[in-house]
Amino acid sequence: MTAQGEQRRAAVVGTGLIGGSVALALQAAGWHVAGSDIDPARAERALQLGVINSVGSDPDAEITFLAVPVSSVADAAREALRSGGVVTDVGSVKAPLVAAVQDAKFVGGHPMAGSEAIGVDGARGDLFDATTWVLTPTANTDPAAQALVHSVVRSFGAEVLTLDAAQHDHLVATVSHVPHLTAATLMDLAATQAEEHSAVLRLAAGGFRDMTRIAAGDPGMWLDICTDNREAILGVLDDLLDSLGVMRGIVATGDSEALEQRLRLAQQARRSLPTGAPAAEQLAEIRVSIVDQPGELASVTALATELGVNVYDVEVAHTAGDRRGRLILVVDADRAASLAEALRSQSRVVSVHELA
Amino acid sequence: MTAQGEQRRAAVVGTGLIGGSVALALQAAGWHVAGSDIDPARAERALQLGVINSVGSDPDAEITFLAVPVSSVADAAREALRSGGVVTDVGSVKAPLVAAVQDAKFVGGHPMAGSEAIGVDGARGDLFDATTWVLTPTANTDPAAQALVHSVVRSFGAEVLTLDAAQHDHLVATVSHVPHLTAATLMDLAATQAEEHSAVLRLAAGGFRDMTRIAAGDPGMWLDICTDNREAILGVLDDLLDSLGVMRGIVATGDSEALEQRLRLAQQARRSLPTGAPAAEQLAEIRVSIVDQPGELASVTALATELGVNVYDVEVAHTAGDRRGRLILVVDADRAASLAEALRSQSRVVSVHELA
Repeated sequence: MTAQGEQRRAAVVGTGLIGGSVALALQAAGWHVAGSDIDPARAERALQLGVINSVGSDPDAEITFLAVPVSSVADAAREALRSGGVVTDVGSVKAPLVAAVQDAKFVGGHPMAGSEAIGVDGARGDLFDATTWVLTPTANTDPAAQALVHSVVRSFGAEVLTLDAAQHDHLVATVSHVPHLTAATLMDLAATQAEEHSAVLRLAAGGFRDMTRIAAGDPGMWLDICTDNREAILGVLDDLLDSLGVMRGIVATGDSEALEQRLRLAQQARRSLPTGAPAAEQLAEIRVSIVDQPGELASVTALATELGVNVYDVEVAHTAGDRRGRLILVVDADRAASLAEALRSQSRVVSVHELA
Repeated sequence: MTAQGEQRRAAVVGTGLIGGSVALALQAAGWHVAGSDIDPARAERALQLGVINSVGSDPDAEITFLAVPVSSVADAAREALRSGGVVTDVGSVKAPLVAAVQDAKFVGGHPMAGSEAIGVDGARGDLFDATTWVLTPTANTDPAAQALVHSVVRSFGAEVLTLDAAQHDHLVATVSHVPHLTAATLMDLAATQAEEHSAVLRLAAGGFRDMTRIAAGDPGMWLDICTDNREAILGVLDDLLDSLGVMRGIVATGDSEALEQRLRLAQQARRSLPTGAPAAEQLAEIRVSIVDQPGELASVTALATELGVNVYDVEVAHTAGDRRGRLILVVDADRAASLAEALRSQSRVVSVHELA
């Protein structure tokens, strides 16, 4: 895409832990990275550490990553989109954002990676290796913009999962936001008892430490999340309250059979949690004809997600002077047939190629 | 207590992970260990691995550790007490047990240590190092029996925490039983959603994995625990349901101030969780006159727990032909004065000695 020998240019807005880690991963993939921060001292620190190559914005940035608080992403996106490049973000809540920023060049994103560390000094170029990175394109999204973000994120070692923004928000309420609020509540209950019996905290063994570890994080970002993802969080909290109420009834009546069933379901589910690391199985390439218009790639990748097919890589090939184009998707070989069939049922022209 | 050169003898009933680890820790402290199990093959395996020195009971055992399921401890205790030695256990629920086994030579116990491993092959002699081990003596407990268990457990590297049995049961409901049921419930909620959106489990990042790790354990022991500790678990579940309901209200009304306050309290409490490892500060010895009768040591150690004073070691010294005796407690030097004062206010004769 660029002339030989010319370095591709990227920008990162917000040079904290996540932004800094994105910058390091970009550099490792060969990009020049300009970095900026609302706090100039933080950007200077990032430069000093070699996390970014220059301080400030870059009008030639092909891609810009926004790593700013959830409440500031929409404004930062509008600002960054002015330069004409592709813009993505790393915020934890997506539906309000993609509704606020309806631009073909914007692709919402959310890396499912974190760290106990705070600030750019904890940034690591391998933070996203073997993690899942969600993208939430919409019917407005330019396929080429989505494919660019997909391939850059893949170059960080992350698996890409394409989801509808509202679906993402509901699912992370289940596996992140409500668990966090629950961990804090359990910790608060123990702390309240500790006022009377200091012994309680000495009883806290490995299981309790594991469960409450996330409560040690900075509360700041959670205030934004609980505002922006309020409806989904309330829905999951209601489900949790219902489920705990049922659990209470099971314990109260001594229904060992029902208790065992619930605990065994949880045990099996916990043991079968995917590890996030890609399996080493064969891959296959699926080529799909598309009309090169907004939302086409989003529609295909959403279908893959629905079918549980992992899209490792994606490329958009154009036919000059024509609005028809072609998608090339790299997927698990043993799932390629089911995705191809589903795409054909949408009257698309599809071919499958072994990569071995 | 034994003739020179004669090895002290101990017994372990139940040669699973915990029983096997107790046996290894006893051997490391120089004891001969006889081991038995309801499943003879397990006892033979323990012998084969060198975890125990002989299979079967030992009529000369000075101390017997019961590492059998909670529902079998009372019967096992009555059986073991026939030999005249001191008997202790490792079960997770204490009040029903100490009520069922009212014997001066029985001391309820609960090591706050676990492992992902199952069975004697996972046994480790250092499993209890730097952990907390609860003892729940009663007004019936022989001070010498309590002191023996205390010193043996200390020799495993554990800190001893002396608690009233009912208090123990309430506190472990808070830091262990209810957190476990909550982890299973969160995992079940995610698994239910996964039936519809398989993506949800790929979103489960570090925090969720940490929170639900304990749900991967075997459900078996939890059925007993939920029966035996029903009242305490229901009480704490009610507190949790109330607290989560308040949290729901805070999210629903967008009360960021209240949310931040709760999250910050949890953050501070989580960060100040004691590490379990003893600090290297100076120790002091407190000598207390007692009437050598059941419950005297239990009363003194419970007072220490109430004051937050860590009792590292304890010894009972008798005066021949007299029912008066003396306790020697080793405690943190900087807390010795407060414990001494509290003991004096009970009209006891107390002296404090620096150990440096």
